[in-house]
Amino acid sequence: MTAGIIGATGYAGAELVRLLSGHPEIKTLKLSSVSYEGDKIENIYPNFLGRISGSLVKAEEVIASSDVVFAALPHGVGETFAASCMEKKIHFIDFSADFRFDDDEQVYTAWYGKNYKYPELHKNSVYGLVELNRQKVKDLAAKGPVIIGNPGCYPTGGSLGAFPALARGLNQTELPVIVDAVTGTTGGGREPSRSFHYAECADSVSPYKVGSHRHSPEIVRNLSAMAANGNNPAPRLIFTPRLAPVNRGILSVIYIPLKAQWRVNVDNANLPPSNEIEAKAAEIRRLYADFYKDEPFVRILPAGLTAATNRVRQSNFCDISVHIDINGSTLIVTTAIDNMVKGAAGQAIQNMNILFGFDEKSGLEMIPALF
Amino acid sequence: MTAGIIGATGYAGAELVRLLSGHPEIKTLKLSSVSYEGDKIENIYPNFLGRISGSLVKAEEVIASSDVVFAALPHGVGETFAASCMEKKIHFIDFSADFRFDDDEQVYTAWYGKNYKYPELHKNSVYGLVELNRQKVKDLAAKGPVIIGNPGCYPTGGSLGAFPALARGLNQTELPVIVDAVTGTTGGGREPSRSFHYAECADSVSPYKVGSHRHSPEIVRNLSAMAANGNNPAPRLIFTPRLAPVNRGILSVIYIPLKAQWRVNVDNANLPPSNEIEAKAAEIRRLYADFYKDEPFVRILPAGLTAATNRVRQSNFCDISVHIDINGSTLIVTTAIDNMVKGAAGQAIQNMNILFGFDEKSGLEMIPALF
Amino acid sequence: MTAGIIGATGYAGAELVRLLSGHPEIKTLKLSSVSYEGDKIENIYPNFLGRISGSLVKAEEVIASSDVVFAALPHGVGETFAASCMEKKIHFIDFSADFRFDDDEQVYTAWYGKNYKYPELHKNSVYGLVELNRQKVKDLAAKGPVIIGNPGCYPTGGSLGAFPALARGLNQTELPVIVDAVTGTTGGGREPSRSFHYAECADSVSPYKVGSHRHSPEIVRNLSAMAANGNNPAPRLIFTPRLAPVNRGILSVIYIPLKAQWRVNVDNANLPPSNEIEAKAAEIRRLYADFYKDEPFVRILPAGLTAATNRVRQSNFCDISVHIDINGSTLIVTTAIDNMVKGAAGQAIQNMNILFGFDEKSGLEMIPALF
Amino acid sequence: MTAGIIGATGYAGAELVRLLSGHPEIKTLKLSSVSYEGDKIENIYPNFLGRISGSLVKAEEVIASSDVVFAALPHGVGETFAASCMEKKIHFIDFSADFRFDDDEQVYTAWYGKNYKYPELHKNSVYGLVELNRQKVKDLAAKGPVIIGNPGCYPTGGSLGAFPALARGLNQTELPVIVDAVTGTTGGGREPSRSFHYAECADSVSPYKVGSHRHSPEIVRNLSAMAANGNNPAPRLIFTPRLAPVNRGILSVIYIPLKAQWRVNVDNANLPPSNEIEAKAAEIRRLYADFYKDEPFVRILPAGLTAATNRVRQSNFCDISVHIDINGSTLIVTTAIDNMVKGAAGQAIQNMNILFGFDEKSGLEMIPALF
Repeated sequence: MTAGIIGATGYAGAELVRLLSGHPEIKTLKLSSVSYEGDKIENIYPNFLGRISGSLVKAEEVIASSDVVFAALPHGVGETFAASCMEKKIHFIDFSADFRFDDDEQVYTAWYGKNYKYPELHKNSVYGLVELNRQKVKDLAAKGPVIIGNPGCYPTGGSLGAFPALARGLNQTELPVIVDAVTGTTGGGREPSRSFHYAECADSVSPYKVGSHRHSPEIVRNLSAMAANGNNPAPRLIFTPRLAPVNRGILSVIYIPLKAQWRVNVDNANLPPSNEIEAKAAEIRRLYADFYKDEPFVRILPAGLTAATNRVRQSNFCDISVHIDINGSTLIVTTAIDNMVKGAAGQAIQNMNILFGFDEKSGLEMIPALF
Repeated sequence: MTAGIIGATGYAGAELVRLLSGHPEIKTLKLSSVSYEGDKIENIYPNFLGRISGSLVKAEEVIASSDVVFAALPHGVGETFAASCMEKKIHFIDFSADFRFDDDEQVYTAWYGKNYKYPELHKNSVYGLVELNRQKVKDLAAKGPVIIGNPGCYPTGGSLGAFPALARGLNQTELPVIVDAVTGTTGGGREPSRSFHYAECADSVSPYKVGSHRHSPEIVRNLSAMAANGNNPAPRLIFTPRLAPVNRGILSVIYIPLKAQWRVNVDNANLPPSNEIEAKAAEIRRLYADFYKDEPFVRILPAGLTAATNRVRQSNFCDISVHIDINGSTLIVTTAIDNMVKGAAGQAIQNMNILFGFDEKSGLEMIPALF
Repeated sequence: MTAGIIGATGYAGAELVRLLSGHPEIKTLKLSSVSYEGDKIENIYPNFLGRISGSLVKAEEVIASSDVVFAALPHGVGETFAASCMEKKIHFIDFSADFRFDDDEQVYTAWYGKNYKYPELHKNSVYGLVELNRQKVKDLAAKGPVIIGNPGCYPTGGSLGAFPALARGLNQTELPVIVDAVTGTTGGGREPSRSFHYAECADSVSPYKVGSHRHSPEIVRNLSAMAANGNNPAPRLIFTPRLAPVNRGILSVIYIPLKAQWRVNVDNANLPPSNEIEAKAAEIRRLYADFYKDEPFVRILPAGLTAATNRVRQSNFCDISVHIDINGSTLIVTTAIDNMVKGAAGQAIQNMNILFGFDEKSGLEMIPALF
Repeated sequence: MTAGIIGATGYAGAELVRLLSGHPEIKTLKLSSVSYEGDKIENIYPNFLGRISGSLVKAEEVIASSDVVFAALPHGVGETFAASCMEKKIHFIDFSADFRFDDDEQVYTAWYGKNYKYPELHKNSVYGLVELNRQKVKDLAAKGPVIIGNPGCYPTGGSLGAFPALARGLNQTELPVIVDAVTGTTGGGREPSRSFHYAECADSVSPYKVGSHRHSPEIVRNLSAMAANGNNPAPRLIFTPRLAPVNRGILSVIYIPLKAQWRVNVDNANLPPSNEIEAKAAEIRRLYADFYKDEPFVRILPAGLTAATNRVRQSNFCDISVHIDINGSTLIVTTAIDNMVKGAAGQAIQNMNILFGFDEKSGLEMIPALF
């Protein structure tokens, strides 16, 4: 089978090239890049020398010769390629935000400043957060070629940590869920800029777009959809991202105010947490483990561990730890993903595996190294 | 004037040695270290060669020959030295948690596992968060020798960001304030350990003691005291610390649910923030600026900037930025401090300056380098 | 086939566990650890959760149930296990220095402070630098069980960069070869210590054991053996290691004074390098490429590239770039390896593959990610 | 006194602004920036907020109102400003390479691709490596306004480590001196680029311009001048720079082949270094200490220490350690400087202090923090 990648020289594209090169069902890769057309991928990424070799051709040529096409392009430029793929009747997996909002063009336009050129395409697309929409992806694939809007990195880590609580209705619905996520620098992409200039982001931590990042509406949609699955009302969301000097990884801490019956009564919140708090946290931890028991890439950590980005680095895992705060009132969930894998290329491959009926873990069995 | 430092070879002690060496009112330093008694400070810290030279003597000797004594010791071992200083009638500034809880021995014991040996000392001590207790420090110093409990690093950054909101009663008092703080590794001290082993903390972010860190009760005390100053009720607190691969700095994000009259009405929280939100944030930013207008080390950042640890590195500043979330319901404040300076040695010197009536900025006019 | 690992919880051992878990010929792993006997590997390395699970048993038990045994132990404690393996007639691959010096006990003892307990074992052992001794490993394996002394990390990167020049007699033999290698911190192992404490090795570069590191005699042996293969005299060596704040990787720069007929005549060495220098460097680059043309893990970089550790990270590659200095007198070679893979666990697997007649690349086809 | 800085918003310029702000003899700063004319320095560097405030004006305006002018500009654009300063009879200190080669325009042009516009200016200029040319700077200042070519960062660390050996004739003159220097990223300046993009330079080490960097001829000139001071012949030089993931600092290792009478006879270079080697190294260390005994910013480290960049960070120190290799044939010197201070802004201030007869240490007494 031949997989095509449009936008193969950006970071997400290059990571996809690397991972698909080891995928047992993929025989050939066809790559395109506007910036480097005519060059070879191993000249742009000499780390590939001797392992991956490929000429960078035009996007049209990629589509013409592939059985599935991935697009790792800036927002707002992929619809035409999606249309071509639908015409050619092959699946199209898009890394941009273009197909993450279904037919809610208003939200997409408000945040990304673009309009839909082919509104009808969005009716046949599916948002590819597997843990939310696996069945929908399968169902659509049974009918014909599918467009998948591959999720954003923050929405992946943030949503997975909140899903069980919302599906099971643990949260006090009138209060907002807070997602505070620390990210590595690869999320900023390959283009040099002041924000990612080594001397200015090394040895420093800083938040940005506090409370108003464009991944907010995507997370809200996910949380609302999952809550609705459990017949629970949609939550509000507050989302803050911070940049830390690491290459890969997103460490999210998610604050979910607990509904009365899930809270623990605490006499004096100035004292260390009671056994009762630990017991309640253990109960919710089991609930989380049960919720995700069939998910191949979600790991619920045992008590005593918190999520850490170096334990999921270069893997498709999402690690989750479950805690209750000292007041007994708020569920605190920490999640760690590799933003380039589970947050981008790995998740896209997971979607491809589902679309084609491959083993969902196929090509994604990397074991993270701690160091 | 001679300043004595007990515990001069730990990180906070060494930072104090470095900063006091440039203090215009301090002529001599007397240093002690249990681990390195008899050795010289420049052998332990060869970065001091040619600038600072000093023999490490016994703590008693330090007290005997100093006009003010700082103790940068583990929790629970400094009371005896405090007692000696009181007897000798010289000020004692303590970096440990021993004098941070006044006479609330229950909380101290619950979190630090120690009891007060000299309960009466705690009645004459003062918690040295200058922006909260400056006047109290001055008043006590007017009467005689003072014991200062120098604040913890997290409580400094966390409290300063919440003070104006609590003093002015902006917060919805029945909901908790959340402080989520990312710290550098020097906070873990000089002793090698797995958590701070380079290969395991480089290129990674991880939370720890989620929702139950022992700096929680200290922050709660601060927030409650400041709220009480404004005749407002004490808030509840949720506190989560995370470790990031930087040497110095704490970047706190503080979520303060707004009281009805401070909220902004938002029709659709899935759209980018309205001008109304920006206007309200600007109003609160001015309120913050006004609140701190006489504080020499607090900088309220203009709109468009968020706090970043590399802009305060090696300085005594606390940078603060003010935001409102996309729902219009929550005040989000970010603060950055250098945990070794404003969070430890610098704040201690600030206290010393007040105790002795020096210019409060004396010895603390370092200009942070960005890189 | 079952592979046994004694010392599975150190960094090299854990990396071997990770890599062997993906090896197509290895069905089962048996692991031992003195420090964590009775525990499970996934408790020590939670990054393995869901992928690798294994109880840590006694070394003897590992040997009893394995078809090949790896030992990743401190220097001087593995001979007994080697003896047991020989008795049981299974191959033994040792990560320590114990079997790197054949029967030259004097050098071993002088640097490692230990004596050989089983001198006769060293006669049947082979130093496992594959690019030097592949045939010898094969020949020994044809006769019976083999003990392999897996090379040190510095000697691997340093030797591979100098081999072609020495084998072909390019060097001026009366002058020393200089190897100056910058290493990452994982080379220091898993035990916390001051040198690898985050705050003291982050954001800093420092050399250590300048001109007298114990990897010197190992490199000298390699260079001399390769020179002898080409009937050239043994060179002298100067070796300096430096520590830089990276996790993995060794970047060696190797200075090889050129013999008269390989030098380029330069009129004014204060001017930029002439085309003649570039031409001569290209000639030697071709010579290097030819020398290594059958090596699966050595990549000779094209002109314009220098070796960089992030292009070989988590792979078994050794990247090599070839240059001539501005004076036309000295060959400068740069090499990059991942010290944990080609410098330890990967090279050990490469040896295992040869011993068992597997494809030499088996289990070692990782494609390095740039970031 | 008013100091003017042309090019105040680049990294070297900004560091100079920061350091001069604390200089006791400088009352006012006048700043210019082509990119940000009309803006304020604290908007470009918000780390300066509350400490440094200044409008960015035209270069001409800076010159008109200053008593001394520093230019931190790209190579090849400063001569006009130098001419204006000479006309106005004020000292001009240039950070570019334009005045580092005296009247040797050929070398300058060959490496920097520019010609001298005002050749006569170069006759009155002096290369400002203080430890080489202090007296010359003083002598010229006695006669009138002086143009100083402030040294490059690599030439500073490389030359200082070799000076005593060359001045005293320890080196075997027919063999090259090798300088292998690992640098931090600030040396690459403020403009974002692929090489300094966080994700591609973090966690990696790589050399560049191997054996042919344009700082080579500058180092050669220094070494030759110092050798000539001691009536010794000029050495050849090989210079290799490497980039490591640190912000500040250059760690140079310098290999100086020893003349016969300074060598130590070694029977077996495969054994650890003899006491004789240590004794000879100690002798040369004393020679180094004696050579630099009046230098305020050179620290010769005691035996057992090697230079490390974190021990000189943010200071004007050059730390030097002295070693002999295991063969007894080569002197190995390690040096550490902060490339932004001793390698740029600090050294420029040192020159200013000499020009004006201030205490040479004035404004440069920063004590490095280890972390």
